[in-house]
Amino acid sequence: MSRELPRHKEAGLARHTEGGQAIGVDLGATTVKAGIVSREGNILANYSIETHADKGPTAVIRQISFTIHQLLNQSKGTDIVGIGIGSPGVVALDGGVVRYPPNFSAWTEVSLGDEIRKEFRMSVDVENDANVAALAEAAFGAGKNEKNFLFVIWGTGVGGGIILNGKIYRGPYGGAGEIGHVTIDYNGPPCGCGSYGCIEAYVGQRYLSQRTRDRLKPLLDAAEQSPSKKPVSKIVELVGGNLDLIEPRVISLAAQQGDPLAHEMLEEAGTLLGIGIASVLNVLDLRLVIVGGGISAADEFVFKAIERSIHSRVLKSSKGKIRVAPAQLGNMAGILGAASLVWMHEGEEYVQRHP
Amino acid sequence: MSRELPRHKEAGLARHTEGGQAIGVDLGATTVKAGIVSREGNILANYSIETHADKGPTAVIRQISFTIHQLLNQSKGTDIVGIGIGSPGVVALDGGVVRYPPNFSAWTEVSLGDEIRKEFRMSVDVENDANVAALAEAAFGAGKNEKNFLFVIWGTGVGGGIILNGKIYRGPYGGAGEIGHVTIDYNGPPCGCGSYGCIEAYVGQRYLSQRTRDRLKPLLDAAEQSPSKKPVSKIVELVGGNLDLIEPRVISLAAQQGDPLAHEMLEEAGTLLGIGIASVLNVLDLRLVIVGGGISAADEFVFKAIERSIHSRVLKSSKGKIRVAPAQLGNMAGILGAASLVWMHEGEEYVQRHP
Repeated sequence: MSRELPRHKEAGLARHTEGGQAIGVDLGATTVKAGIVSREGNILANYSIETHADKGPTAVIRQISFTIHQLLNQSKGTDIVGIGIGSPGVVALDGGVVRYPPNFSAWTEVSLGDEIRKEFRMSVDVENDANVAALAEAAFGAGKNEKNFLFVIWGTGVGGGIILNGKIYRGPYGGAGEIGHVTIDYNGPPCGCGSYGCIEAYVGQRYLSQRTRDRLKPLLDAAEQSPSKKPVSKIVELVGGNLDLIEPRVISLAAQQGDPLAHEMLEEAGTLLGIGIASVLNVLDLRLVIVGGGISAADEFVFKAIERSIHSRVLKSSKGKIRVAPAQLGNMAGILGAASLVWMHEGEEYVQRHP
Repeated sequence: MSRELPRHKEAGLARHTEGGQAIGVDLGATTVKAGIVSREGNILANYSIETHADKGPTAVIRQISFTIHQLLNQSKGTDIVGIGIGSPGVVALDGGVVRYPPNFSAWTEVSLGDEIRKEFRMSVDVENDANVAALAEAAFGAGKNEKNFLFVIWGTGVGGGIILNGKIYRGPYGGAGEIGHVTIDYNGPPCGCGSYGCIEAYVGQRYLSQRTRDRLKPLLDAAEQSPSKKPVSKIVELVGGNLDLIEPRVISLAAQQGDPLAHEMLEEAGTLLGIGIASVLNVLDLRLVIVGGGISAADEFVFKAIERSIHSRVLKSSKGKIRVAPAQLGNMAGILGAASLVWMHEGEEYVQRHP
């Protein structure tokens, strides 16, 4: 199968030019976000739209295409050298096949790359979203001057990306980096993946929220019995008493307002995350850990807790030498990393490209 | 620093010839074993001698040199292209610096590679012993037809080597592959490394023996009280009643003779090892696990237990696709892998060679 030509240039040439811009698409279960990105990592234009993940793959592809068309229309005359897409699920680079993205209806296995390539006749790279975020940090963010690091994305779930020698380590089957499913207690709570005691089952959004609720309830019950009616925690105030609304953002906000329980919950979560990361670092021998996702740079004590936990666990040869840094690109990581796919995938070990 | 010339040829050339033999040295805390190895993996001659690890680095280097001289004397006329050494401890490839090998007295940091190179004036490669054993399986053993696998060495401790694309993954600092220090229960028993609940702290030789003793003692006490005096376990017979002599080999022998407790202890150990390995596989996305060390192919049920445990834990995309195979090279892995260093290190990503 021969590679399609882009609009203005022969593909191989376009890929290697120093100039040129790329379109980065961040495919989420709720929103498709995309932007035109310069080689320096500036987002020159962006556009977002609902994903319609509940309407099946054809609808989703239509939304992605529409977004790309919007950007191409805006970019008349500029030199777009390719399209990169970050997607949930396991991604096979060859053809950009996306398998079982969570929260997408009726999507088993779709050749997303081929579909988009057919429509736009330019180079299209598809990669797993956590890997894309890692790549963004490597290209433009906290890993800019580092060739090797572990990227951890701590949000709804816990994911990761491994950057070795400046490239993503995808593993021979494209599914590497699932650090959320490193077990920290084999007798621990059940995880959504079917195993027990995975890191995600402690610190993933849903689990952390539930653990916080479980910690609050007896305190609230006790407070009700007590005559003083002293407020139990800022967390309860922030959700107006509705514990169902508790989520990590709320816990983080409460911690920033000095709430001891919120502080304790997040510090404990950081410690637990650090335990799992230490296992991964003993296997990979990396010394930089970049943490992104829901956690913000404001939660400095959480980063410190992660770092302390790693140092208390990791092998002697690395002890004291590991640094935990916040991701720098926030919401823009998906677009930037996807765009950088266009430039950075060359020479990637496990890429089986179209000839 | 320029590379020293070997006896007969210019180093670069010697390295790339298809013919030629290599000397492989397996440096252990008790014995130095070495052999002349053909490119096909045949050991043409071998020699072994005490290590004298308690007498300091100079004594150890003397023993290694003596061993190599013995082999060179035997090999008169054959074409030895280089020397490979597998050593305990963290090894820096450049100069072959070996740091803190366990059970070696007064050995902090020694340029073992440079010392041997100085004496023999040929190419000398030094690599960590677990990596060397992994490399041996990749070159001549159970991984011969596989480009990617996890090698686990289960003996006194639990170590490992990661083979990616046919090469050792050493990590940027040379210490990768320490799968024995993946935590499976963060509240678990203390490990020699300073952490808690590492795989090694469950299934390493000393720990497994102790766990077996702990399991036997109440049974023995109960048997003493009982009038029937029924024998408790074959393990007790095999050590003549001296529980201090219990070691994995004895447990394995008892299991082969049908002893239920021995079987249970080893199956449980396999299950626990599998839990740790599953975490590693989720991170690396590998599908072949080769297990060597004390465990023998006779313990087939243990390999099955490891495999079952992995499949019950690993992510859906890999479930049912992972194979656990016994290492094939046994005691010879050290010599064979060390020799194959001479041929296989070319192009290794993290090798910083002398120019």
